[in-house]
Amino acid sequence: MTRSDGRTATDLRPVTIERGWSTQAEGSALISFGNTKVLCTASFTNGVPRWLKGKGTGWVTAEYSMLPRSTNDRMDRESVKGKIGGRTHEISRLIGRSLRAVVDMKALGENTIVIDCDVLQADGGTRTAAITGAYVALADSLEWGRDKGFIGKNSKPLIDSVAAVSVGIVKGEPLLDLAYVEDVKAETDMNVVVTGRGLFVEVQGTAEGAPFDRDELNALLDLALGGTADLTAMQVASLAS
Amino acid sequence: MTRSDGRTATDLRPVTIERGWSTQAEGSALISFGNTKVLCTASFTNGVPRWLKGKGTGWVTAEYSMLPRSTNDRMDRESVKGKIGGRTHEISRLIGRSLRAVVDMKALGENTIVIDCDVLQADGGTRTAAITGAYVALADSLEWGRDKGFIGKNSKPLIDSVAAVSVGIVKGEPLLDLAYVEDVKAETDMNVVVTGRGLFVEVQGTAEGAPFDRDELNALLDLALGGTADLTAMQVASLAS
Amino acid sequence: MTRSDGRTATDLRPVTIERGWSTQAEGSALISFGNTKVLCTASFTNGVPRWLKGKGTGWVTAEYSMLPRSTNDRMDRESVKGKIGGRTHEISRLIGRSLRAVVDMKALGENTIVIDCDVLQADGGTRTAAITGAYVALADSLEWGRDKGFIGKNSKPLIDSVAAVSVGIVKGEPLLDLAYVEDVKAETDMNVVVTGRGLFVEVQGTAEGAPFDRDELNALLDLALGGTADLTAMQVASLAS
Amino acid sequence: MTRSDGRTATDLRPVTIERGWSTQAEGSALISFGNTKVLCTASFTNGVPRWLKGKGTGWVTAEYSMLPRSTNDRMDRESVKGKIGGRTHEISRLIGRSLRAVVDMKALGENTIVIDCDVLQADGGTRTAAITGAYVALADSLEWGRDKGFIGKNSKPLIDSVAAVSVGIVKGEPLLDLAYVEDVKAETDMNVVVTGRGLFVEVQGTAEGAPFDRDELNALLDLALGGTADLTAMQVASLAS
Amino acid sequence: MTRSDGRTATDLRPVTIERGWSTQAEGSALISFGNTKVLCTASFTNGVPRWLKGKGTGWVTAEYSMLPRSTNDRMDRESVKGKIGGRTHEISRLIGRSLRAVVDMKALGENTIVIDCDVLQADGGTRTAAITGAYVALADSLEWGRDKGFIGKNSKPLIDSVAAVSVGIVKGEPLLDLAYVEDVKAETDMNVVVTGRGLFVEVQGTAEGAPFDRDELNALLDLALGGTADLTAMQVASLAS
Amino acid sequence: MTRSDGRTATDLRPVTIERGWSTQAEGSALISFGNTKVLCTASFTNGVPRWLKGKGTGWVTAEYSMLPRSTNDRMDRESVKGKIGGRTHEISRLIGRSLRAVVDMKALGENTIVIDCDVLQADGGTRTAAITGAYVALADSLEWGRDKGFIGKNSKPLIDSVAAVSVGIVKGEPLLDLAYVEDVKAETDMNVVVTGRGLFVEVQGTAEGAPFDRDELNALLDLALGGTADLTAMQVASLAS
Repeated sequence: MTRSDGRTATDLRPVTIERGWSTQAEGSALISFGNTKVLCTASFTNGVPRWLKGKGTGWVTAEYSMLPRSTNDRMDRESVKGKIGGRTHEISRLIGRSLRAVVDMKALGENTIVIDCDVLQADGGTRTAAITGAYVALADSLEWGRDKGFIGKNSKPLIDSVAAVSVGIVKGEPLLDLAYVEDVKAETDMNVVVTGRGLFVEVQGTAEGAPFDRDELNALLDLALGGTADLTAMQVASLAS
Repeated sequence: MTRSDGRTATDLRPVTIERGWSTQAEGSALISFGNTKVLCTASFTNGVPRWLKGKGTGWVTAEYSMLPRSTNDRMDRESVKGKIGGRTHEISRLIGRSLRAVVDMKALGENTIVIDCDVLQADGGTRTAAITGAYVALADSLEWGRDKGFIGKNSKPLIDSVAAVSVGIVKGEPLLDLAYVEDVKAETDMNVVVTGRGLFVEVQGTAEGAPFDRDELNALLDLALGGTADLTAMQVASLAS
Repeated sequence: MTRSDGRTATDLRPVTIERGWSTQAEGSALISFGNTKVLCTASFTNGVPRWLKGKGTGWVTAEYSMLPRSTNDRMDRESVKGKIGGRTHEISRLIGRSLRAVVDMKALGENTIVIDCDVLQADGGTRTAAITGAYVALADSLEWGRDKGFIGKNSKPLIDSVAAVSVGIVKGEPLLDLAYVEDVKAETDMNVVVTGRGLFVEVQGTAEGAPFDRDELNALLDLALGGTADLTAMQVASLAS
Repeated sequence: MTRSDGRTATDLRPVTIERGWSTQAEGSALISFGNTKVLCTASFTNGVPRWLKGKGTGWVTAEYSMLPRSTNDRMDRESVKGKIGGRTHEISRLIGRSLRAVVDMKALGENTIVIDCDVLQADGGTRTAAITGAYVALADSLEWGRDKGFIGKNSKPLIDSVAAVSVGIVKGEPLLDLAYVEDVKAETDMNVVVTGRGLFVEVQGTAEGAPFDRDELNALLDLALGGTADLTAMQVASLAS
Repeated sequence: MTRSDGRTATDLRPVTIERGWSTQAEGSALISFGNTKVLCTASFTNGVPRWLKGKGTGWVTAEYSMLPRSTNDRMDRESVKGKIGGRTHEISRLIGRSLRAVVDMKALGENTIVIDCDVLQADGGTRTAAITGAYVALADSLEWGRDKGFIGKNSKPLIDSVAAVSVGIVKGEPLLDLAYVEDVKAETDMNVVVTGRGLFVEVQGTAEGAPFDRDELNALLDLALGGTADLTAMQVASLAS
Repeated sequence: MTRSDGRTATDLRPVTIERGWSTQAEGSALISFGNTKVLCTASFTNGVPRWLKGKGTGWVTAEYSMLPRSTNDRMDRESVKGKIGGRTHEISRLIGRSLRAVVDMKALGENTIVIDCDVLQADGGTRTAAITGAYVALADSLEWGRDKGFIGKNSKPLIDSVAAVSVGIVKGEPLLDLAYVEDVKAETDMNVVVTGRGLFVEVQGTAEGAPFDRDELNALLDLALGGTADLTAMQVASLAS
């Protein structure tokens, strides 16, 4: 089966990473997975929230948001509604957990990094693009912290890299990196977060239509491991440039 | 390894289901997984929200909440804080999706069911207990709707049953149905929602400590399928009584 | 006149008090007045809010809430609405004042007790059941505090007990402990909070229909003093068991 | 005992009622009980909220608020805090109930009256001054409605008048119409709402210090009935002017 | 052209300033511009917010609000809506900036003044009346602070006075101090804040209908400077009385 | 005087307009004034809000927001705080008014356009860049509406163009288009919104330090008219490309 944008089932969409997009943030990346574009910034602060003070460990957290017209129909702003929706909360928490999984908080020391992932344009896979770009911003902010002397010369706060991709079953066929038109038709939708070494950080599979069996689950995991390996290579290339 | 409460790795905690606990709700169940106690009520209303009117399909949604002193330390009420936290949102959404996966919305017709899962006491596994109890409340509310004539005599809105259990890796060993003391030590934590026929509705695995590999994932899924099969049998027995 | 549930005008509904229902709270009681069921927990914390520090006195406060389907028609959650309604505020304040009236804050010392009263099922009289059950939870939490050494051996923080009951005039007849079907028909509705020694802590009478005269007020107060004396005896029995 | 402002125990403070203070509202009164000053406006609208439409009955409701510097220390605005406190809710509800007790909703017809009571300066007794002034504003707005033809010529929506006063026990002595310096010292505090015919609409007695007995309750009610009779006469005079 | 209330284009409405209206606030003024009435209070506190501590400078801020029935149609309260509207925010900020422009924060020392401007009745020009009255309240609160010893004897925190007036173009003619009926018809509306020495603090001109040219802008500024000079004289007279 | 970035007093920063940046919105522009970057999208909807229905006129409104790390120090998100700040409100209202000043609502017909201006990077002048870019997005969305047949062939909803620039007095010298480092030092700051024909829509001058006199005001207006004429030319060029 050829997909509407000409990809095969195992192809990622074209991925670009504009590292250092922001002139203000300590680390940043404007990442695109096809038409999905997410601006990721990392804000590094020396010091930790009060509840962590004196414990010798750092903190990494994330916030995700969509611009009101990042989508095909305009959404109301959560700031105007006065509250954050469940989906936003869920994705912010997912990004934070994914990044913390590859950070040694002792090695980070009493420093705080807040990652903001703002979706400028949405065409499916915004949370996986966000995680993948956030890692690049995070890595650069850690280098900034090292340059400023907030992180010790021999400390290695990054214990691995992390990337994420969506997979799903559309009309019975497992596909990698769903675009929005595929996502809405998917019977099963899964987001998989994987480290550079190929270990799972998160596996979140949901039957949107029919429940799925063990074989389908395995096929999706295979696809995801292929995709995240490719994304890891792009992260490495971006950080080396 | 024997667990602190004497269970083996593949044992569920003692499970009880008090079906029909509420004299007011159209369906209800007070479910306990060990010391975890969740009151599940199903509120059946003839009619649907405005955005669904005239489409001939129904709606099922869920809300989860914890009493402030269901936990070991008292938590502030979300009503007092004036906003719902990310975890609450996430679990409410999970319960709603899990139930909708086994309901044929066309067969339900233009009726709405709201499931409330209120945790009276928490000792790990509150979301999986909630899903398992919510199914019983849902099934009874559907019978109520049929008795009242809101659902046709030959309509079969329930296409399967659904149950859920948590699994996790503690000190390297995969364990079924984690109690709170185990949950806080788990390296990996997974909630698995499975239908009566043994198909997956949700697989949500998270590396709390070290990332996990494919073999560990498979061991956890095996455990979960065993646990949910047992829970399915208890649901069947409860609904038959 | 015989009432719909067979009681005479001066009868309470069947009252049960499950003391120590919660395995987590320092004191707890699941109280029922007929079909009205309220879970009362007392959370004891050593220390006081900042504004009381160093004054040598403690603090007792209460929060009341109803589960969304405790009532015949489902109510929206106050956490979802993002604000607490006037009735909830009013009852939380009433419970707190009623309990503080029997506590010697100097003898309590710099300790804080938060009482949560969550209505699991509502059939009239939820605030009076809450006060009556909350006293039992409070008393047990004070014993817990004494056992832990947070309250001195010879301190007597409890200077009296407290219980509450509703009374009202229905079709011209004063009745004790109104059930919901009576409450909605009452011309006058009064909640009376009385100590174990028979003194008034709160008298809140409201003309829902016709205003009431001095004789009617007196008849209601007579009924209430009888009812609270009976409730006091049940509290004593529960705490002695 | 002479009181700090020279009154006897049974004296009201000087009361003034500036009827028609507002050039905009359909009815209004700026009432003062000593230094307590409350601006009461009645907004009359033809029509009722959706939930009352077609039932042929009207609606009367009230909102109470204090200016931030009406008190000795400035309070934060509830609009800035983003939520209304329990005390504000409680008093708004009390004013609304008190007014509705003297209005025949059928005779009012499908019209809505919103009473706003804004405390410009507070020196004790703000809620009782508000009720007493609100009645005057209400009465004038009903005449406005009759003039405009929204209320029938022979309809009599007002079935009685209503006034309110605070009473309390200070150093063992029952006193009428407490000023702020007395209120903070009161062992017992009671607000009593009475109709022009001398019937009770609300009796709200609270033991702030020691609980009170039946004799004390009776002494307070005697005082209150004397005070409200005087206030009724002033309302009559104001409306006749 | 004669205006509806008989004024010429360059006339202010009758202005009254009741200095010291409040018995509680450290400074206060009830100001009226025709039927527009604004109660301005100044709350003086020794000390500054945490972010200013130790810098030796003070702080002046303002809050503006309208009573719900200050207008011809009743507005919902912002406290009930749970949020402050854009217009309220905008005017509060304008008043605060205007007052700070004439205060030497070093000379004020570590003291805080909060100005509350509550509109009791609105007939156009509420923000300009608020600024003009707020200055009087501010001046009196500074004297209070000097009397109490919070401001040094030789400190001169007031470096100038400040007053404000609205001007606008109605049917092509520039008019001073618009009443509400004129304001709604104005093609251009401008609020001008001017010091006692005749310097501009704020110039806020808005084309409500057709955009305006340089000549019109100049005509409006001429009118405003005349009006604020008159208001300055009234402030001086009020503070001298 | 040469400015820190080498500009003369009358130079704009380099301005770029990426028209059609968004693949989703009916009109869009990514505009930069030096390092200030604002993404402007126009969402065109056929139909109007309820309060405008049946009047034959359209509606144009705007919302402004800053990404949390658009600034040098990270700001908390307004969605997380649960309320919109005064500055955000103020700027959103300014943008909306500025655009409505050049739209003939009758010619627009019953259509609604919502303009979102999201600041991706902030270096002074975000509101003026937003207005200038918003006009381009608005113009394109109107063409889209005409293409779709929602706007009549001969209707001319745009009666003029609109652009904006900031001016200010820094160390006594009037400067055009202040960068952030200049803005914080400015004694006077003014935002001027001007149509393509050179008429004023908004003039908002504020004395941040010393009040300003008539000559300074005139010098600033001269500068602003020069800057907006240049911006108008760039808008024309962008829309012609």
